Amino acid sequence: MSLDDLDVGEAAPRRRLHVEGPLAPGAEITPEAGQAHWLVNVMRLAPGEAVAVFDGRNGEWRARLAGTRKRPVLAVESPLRPQEPAPDLWLLFAPIKGARTELIAEKATELGVARLMPVITRRTAHPRVNLSRLHANAVEAAEQCGGLVVPEVVAAQPLPDVLGGWDPARRLLFCDEEGGPPALEALNRSGPGPWAILIGPEGGFDADERALLARLDFAVRASLGRRVLRAETAATAALALWHAALNGG
Amino acid sequence: MSLDDLDVGEAAPRRRLHVEGPLAPGAEITPEAGQAHWLVNVMRLAPGEAVAVFDGRNGEWRARLAGTRKRPVLAVESPLRPQEPAPDLWLLFAPIKGARTELIAEKATELGVARLMPVITRRTAHPRVNLSRLHANAVEAAEQCGGLVVPEVVAAQPLPDVLGGWDPARRLLFCDEEGGPPALEALNRSGPGPWAILIGPEGGFDADERALLARLDFAVRASLGRRVLRAETAATAALALWHAALNGG
Repeated sequence: MSLDDLDVGEAAPRRRLHVEGPLAPGAEITPEAGQAHWLVNVMRLAPGEAVAVFDGRNGEWRARLAGTRKRPVLAVESPLRPQEPAPDLWLLFAPIKGARTELIAEKATELGVARLMPVITRRTAHPRVNLSRLHANAVEAAEQCGGLVVPEVVAAQPLPDVLGGWDPARRLLFCDEEGGPPALEALNRSGPGPWAILIGPEGGFDADERALLARLDFAVRASLGRRVLRAETAATAALALWHAALNGG
Repeated sequence: MSLDDLDVGEAAPRRRLHVEGPLAPGAEITPEAGQAHWLVNVMRLAPGEAVAVFDGRNGEWRARLAGTRKRPVLAVESPLRPQEPAPDLWLLFAPIKGARTELIAEKATELGVARLMPVITRRTAHPRVNLSRLHANAVEAAEQCGGLVVPEVVAAQPLPDVLGGWDPARRLLFCDEEGGPPALEALNRSGPGPWAILIGPEGGFDADERALLARLDFAVRASLGRRVLRAETAATAALALWHAALNGG
């Protein structure tokens, strides 16, 4: 799809909905039950009214409400924006209390990541992760912030397993509460390419984890400052610094 | 107080409490009712057990529980850490929904600001701000993250009034959803000194506000990236970039 094909005849609809797709001209999308309720009863869309839809792979499209009130469908019409590539950035985080883990998914989606990977560390106090809830947080954040990318949410794995199967071409920014070079400096020194950011649990990494990370050439140790940050604050700060240093802001 | 005076004979207590102060050797602090409950019934501190206290001005001190269960007092003993200076940074933000405004106060305290200033803009949808709640969020964040500074919370004012009385020696990073140079570049170009960060409401600034800001020499327009960020995400990102660029990380 080129920019010339984009639908610019009418302002883009302000309502945005993530759908399963795949989106293509003439496609008819059956919204999920919750979305159908939202469209018909909350937003009170009349038949023929427009909504923007995106599926995370094929850009954003204008669609119109069709079907019946009981069984609404979205008739896909014309492209609004081409798909934007996901930044080649993963976020690895030790899960924390539910609501704050959800904040991590939300903030990461707003700022932009390709993948959310919960990792279980020795001091992880809340190892249970509701993956479908994290996916829903990411979808909602993408709908809200105008993003076209919904990060992939992968199942939680122990940190040593994740590091054991790591592709050494992907650098890992290891945010260390005990110090290290400032993160911005570490990012600038390492430069662009595939990256991941690793945020530890409350209480930080233990000595074995720290020793393991120190042996790995792809791990870049860095500090997010003198203060102890909550995990979701650390994740947001590190993602903002990565985008500023290596992704043009 | 010099570093030589610091109490290093015993590990610093892990429990931290913000108190009114002023803290000094031999001072007796009467905790607030909620704090007394927390010390005696939640943490179950026995008489003579230690807690770290800070007042935001005189560093952190070791204190021991004294008095009675009904009327506990904290007997201040020896200094643990000297006061750290607050960064010369203010955060101006358009208030948003309650819980998210509280997140702004929390994140700003964790990352470090001297002053929290709610400002009312044309598109501010939630102009009511609970100042004592914001102060409580800041205190709790400082207790939690090991900080010694509790930012001053000032009453909400309309944006034009704030800008009308502005000291032009203080730069104002105006985070513009409609674009501008990347924030990191704008901060590096302007350099250190007194700063403030201005985060707008959902929906951004209106044309008049934008025109007013464009006329002010102390206002530095900057972008936080291509995506629309929620206000608390924008505040966290901008504060992280400021600390990384101008405050050593």
